[in-house]
Amino acid sequence: MGKVQFKSKHGRFFEDFKLGQRLVHAAPRTLTEGDAAFYIALTGQRYAMTSSDSFARDCGLAGAPLEPWLVFHTVFGKSVPDISANAVANLGYAEGRFMASVYPGDTVHAVSEVIGLKENSNGKTGVVYVRTRGENQSGETLLEFVRWVMVNKREAASPAPEPVVPKLDGAVSAAELFVPEGLTFEEYDFRLAGARWAYGDYEVGERIDHVDGMTVEEAEHQLATRLYQNTARVHFDALAQKGSRFGRRLIYGGVTISIARALAFNGLENAALTLALNGGRHVAPLFAGDTVYAWSQVLDKAELAPDIGALRLRLVAVKNQSCADFPLKTESGEDQAAVLLDLDYWAAIPIKR
Amino acid sequence: MGKVQFKSKHGRFFEDFKLGQRLVHAAPRTLTEGDAAFYIALTGQRYAMTSSDSFARDCGLAGAPLEPWLVFHTVFGKSVPDISANAVANLGYAEGRFMASVYPGDTVHAVSEVIGLKENSNGKTGVVYVRTRGENQSGETLLEFVRWVMVNKREAASPAPEPVVPKLDGAVSAAELFVPEGLTFEEYDFRLAGARWAYGDYEVGERIDHVDGMTVEEAEHQLATRLYQNTARVHFDALAQKGSRFGRRLIYGGVTISIARALAFNGLENAALTLALNGGRHVAPLFAGDTVYAWSQVLDKAELAPDIGALRLRLVAVKNQSCADFPLKTESGEDQAAVLLDLDYWAAIPIKR
Amino acid sequence: MGKVQFKSKHGRFFEDFKLGQRLVHAAPRTLTEGDAAFYIALTGQRYAMTSSDSFARDCGLAGAPLEPWLVFHTVFGKSVPDISANAVANLGYAEGRFMASVYPGDTVHAVSEVIGLKENSNGKTGVVYVRTRGENQSGETLLEFVRWVMVNKREAASPAPEPVVPKLDGAVSAAELFVPEGLTFEEYDFRLAGARWAYGDYEVGERIDHVDGMTVEEAEHQLATRLYQNTARVHFDALAQKGSRFGRRLIYGGVTISIARALAFNGLENAALTLALNGGRHVAPLFAGDTVYAWSQVLDKAELAPDIGALRLRLVAVKNQSCADFPLKTESGEDQAAVLLDLDYWAAIPIKR
Repeated sequence: MGKVQFKSKHGRFFEDFKLGQRLVHAAPRTLTEGDAAFYIALTGQRYAMTSSDSFARDCGLAGAPLEPWLVFHTVFGKSVPDISANAVANLGYAEGRFMASVYPGDTVHAVSEVIGLKENSNGKTGVVYVRTRGENQSGETLLEFVRWVMVNKREAASPAPEPVVPKLDGAVSAAELFVPEGLTFEEYDFRLAGARWAYGDYEVGERIDHVDGMTVEEAEHQLATRLYQNTARVHFDALAQKGSRFGRRLIYGGVTISIARALAFNGLENAALTLALNGGRHVAPLFAGDTVYAWSQVLDKAELAPDIGALRLRLVAVKNQSCADFPLKTESGEDQAAVLLDLDYWAAIPIKR
Repeated sequence: MGKVQFKSKHGRFFEDFKLGQRLVHAAPRTLTEGDAAFYIALTGQRYAMTSSDSFARDCGLAGAPLEPWLVFHTVFGKSVPDISANAVANLGYAEGRFMASVYPGDTVHAVSEVIGLKENSNGKTGVVYVRTRGENQSGETLLEFVRWVMVNKREAASPAPEPVVPKLDGAVSAAELFVPEGLTFEEYDFRLAGARWAYGDYEVGERIDHVDGMTVEEAEHQLATRLYQNTARVHFDALAQKGSRFGRRLIYGGVTISIARALAFNGLENAALTLALNGGRHVAPLFAGDTVYAWSQVLDKAELAPDIGALRLRLVAVKNQSCADFPLKTESGEDQAAVLLDLDYWAAIPIKR
Repeated sequence: MGKVQFKSKHGRFFEDFKLGQRLVHAAPRTLTEGDAAFYIALTGQRYAMTSSDSFARDCGLAGAPLEPWLVFHTVFGKSVPDISANAVANLGYAEGRFMASVYPGDTVHAVSEVIGLKENSNGKTGVVYVRTRGENQSGETLLEFVRWVMVNKREAASPAPEPVVPKLDGAVSAAELFVPEGLTFEEYDFRLAGARWAYGDYEVGERIDHVDGMTVEEAEHQLATRLYQNTARVHFDALAQKGSRFGRRLIYGGVTISIARALAFNGLENAALTLALNGGRHVAPLFAGDTVYAWSQVLDKAELAPDIGALRLRLVAVKNQSCADFPLKTESGEDQAAVLLDLDYWAAIPIKR
């Protein structure tokens, strides 16, 4: 038999990351109308802005843009083989900004920079902070975000690097938000969008139960995660997962985000376009057979233009339990067991004049 | 914690419908080549006319039109949050006509008018009749159909409205059928389409067993129903359905229609384009794990042009039982337990000269 | 009740094939960006060449071509109703060549010629050899391949035809390979493609474990096989399969090929374009719930142009067992029980100068 070569990749360990390291991720991906249809079929997304060319054109765009979260998951997926193939946990997000609309036919590239490294006290793992950027075929930045992950060390004996923890903003400030080029809500058709609620109808502190629930199947999350070309084996290899802590395939956290955002249509019909990801935590894992529910809270508001407002929203996804009583923390301040996701983001919404 | 707002929708109850009410449904949806690929992957559809641009062009069309039933399900799906979110049962269809071909890139809008209301004698439910119309981005009518659903009352004590039951045609007459613009069968290639049977080969009364069977998975019907942006929770929320009469997720009836029509290719290869929906009943529910079979009967025939005929067809879908003996009614005239669907429609078919 | 007509097809039996017979398969199929997205979602494919328009353009192509195996499965699927509806087994492939790039919007037609017939000694089955060709809308040949299948006889008593077994090449010679029109690797970006390994880095005999595993669900293989419009009922009808030898749905062998080729990205990142199918056997059936792993061996190498090389590769897919020790044969030379597929093909790869 022939020589065995080690061309295939097993992913970076904590020791393989260096501060300032720039990682160009493979492979560029052209997103198309096929991906847009898939995103609807996988999530049930109904926002008029990303479902309808004519509606989006009436809002000044070139056509229905691709859902920002589809672009996010694509960029995230590209970073997985280089960043998180050996990750133990996806710890958090910060400073995420969607900077340009992406249209069918655009090609997405991804690059990450290592901006922080800190070994854990157990000596077996470390935390890696990266700033990941998505670009289109012309080199224009589409989005960027910071994420940090806990990664296994190859050997416990390896020396710890100088700890560097980046100082990250608690939220993207309203002044830093990008309004998609051409966007106008002057002729916005609330009836076609599905609800009359505009910027002025939402109050800071207000909570909304999104009512509907969505049960997730193995085939569905696998299709989604492959569509994003995210190859983390915990999502696909049931045999290997039998020996893991959970004993089964884990659903990619982005699937939870997208389902929760799709459920949030019921009450946030006009907040279609995500502008920024302030932060977020995957509080608990989701498994096939679980049913996802969601609720939102308005955290802040900002006027970006006379006709364009932004809502800062907390999006909480919960499993196997209605959101009618807005589950979040226990009396002692712990996360409730049913909570899957606690996300903080900005979305654009029309201002009625 | 913040104030709880009631922005999310729970759907209309019987009391919320008024005769003559016009409901503009959210949200417009641009259908694309992505949806066409999905429809094939979900149903196994093989009709040459809707699979092949070159074949459709040879028949005088601009390219492969989107499958009429894909357009129907999309329009139906848009009407669900306004009409049938609290429906107990989908009782029937009538007067459905497909009036224009829909091509990838077209945007579909939907509007319904309440044309009948009748409270049931139990005082707990009522029947709502609506005429739903689908339009494209230019305001051109694509299709229209009547459906009636049994809807829960909010309170048994609410007074009954004056009963109005619309007079509906038993079938669309051949004179009312729309032939898609440009359609010609003069150069029709029977060999490429898969069978030599033309208009003259079918006799009124003739029955055809479509032979093949298709087992349906939860992931498949959920993907289909989300693609159509139909959000009725009975299809998606396994947890809530545990407490229902059936104890599990119900498959959207349109999934049954589309699978049966795809199976019907085997014997009706040249009857690709549905022109009208005369009527139909979802006789029994379909669940994941069930296998769908189908048979057809020719109910009527009509010549629409020298080269274009139409067959009026009964399409019967059956679960977990072969259609070799054409299951339909018991000896006492009841529906056989295995029957899922009894549909009556017109489809175009070439006339050989 | 009406007359029963026998318009639906049950597939050809061994007696129905004649040497030299030419079968035009129904129905032409336009492949689109929707199919390309589906192929990624179904397989996890990540090759830059077929994922990215801009990457493919930098390699001299008109845009990202459709994955050659998607085209293969489409052509294969079209041949199923005419060739293998009553097949007992898919015995082998030979002389497969991909002769032109296929782009979204192209329409695929398929035609087969019967090139061999041989009754088995048991008198109950026979082997049918066909050469199948896929053409586009302009009549240009896209690919061709030979396959042979074991088909049931209608009646054991039917006389055996004169046995004709075609003489088939053991492999497509390098001189017969078609380089896609316009292809150049002069500006090939290895970093974007995901690995630095070029033609010169691979040695004949070398083996590569592709590491990752993919568990397959019923919904996934059904979606794939319907996308290819392959209607063989063994893949879809769980009820009928209960009475079969395996007691359940069989997964179409092409699903295994495509998953294995997608897994092979990890180690063969730059060998994106399949040029020829030298041969292949489906060694054992794959079922839903199984996990697929894969390994490759370099069988041969050839320089096709100063910048374009080709690797002849053996691709072995294995179920429910890691490929770290390259499972293939037992000590006594039998196939190991876990082996699913043993495929022999040529793929293009850049030569670094």
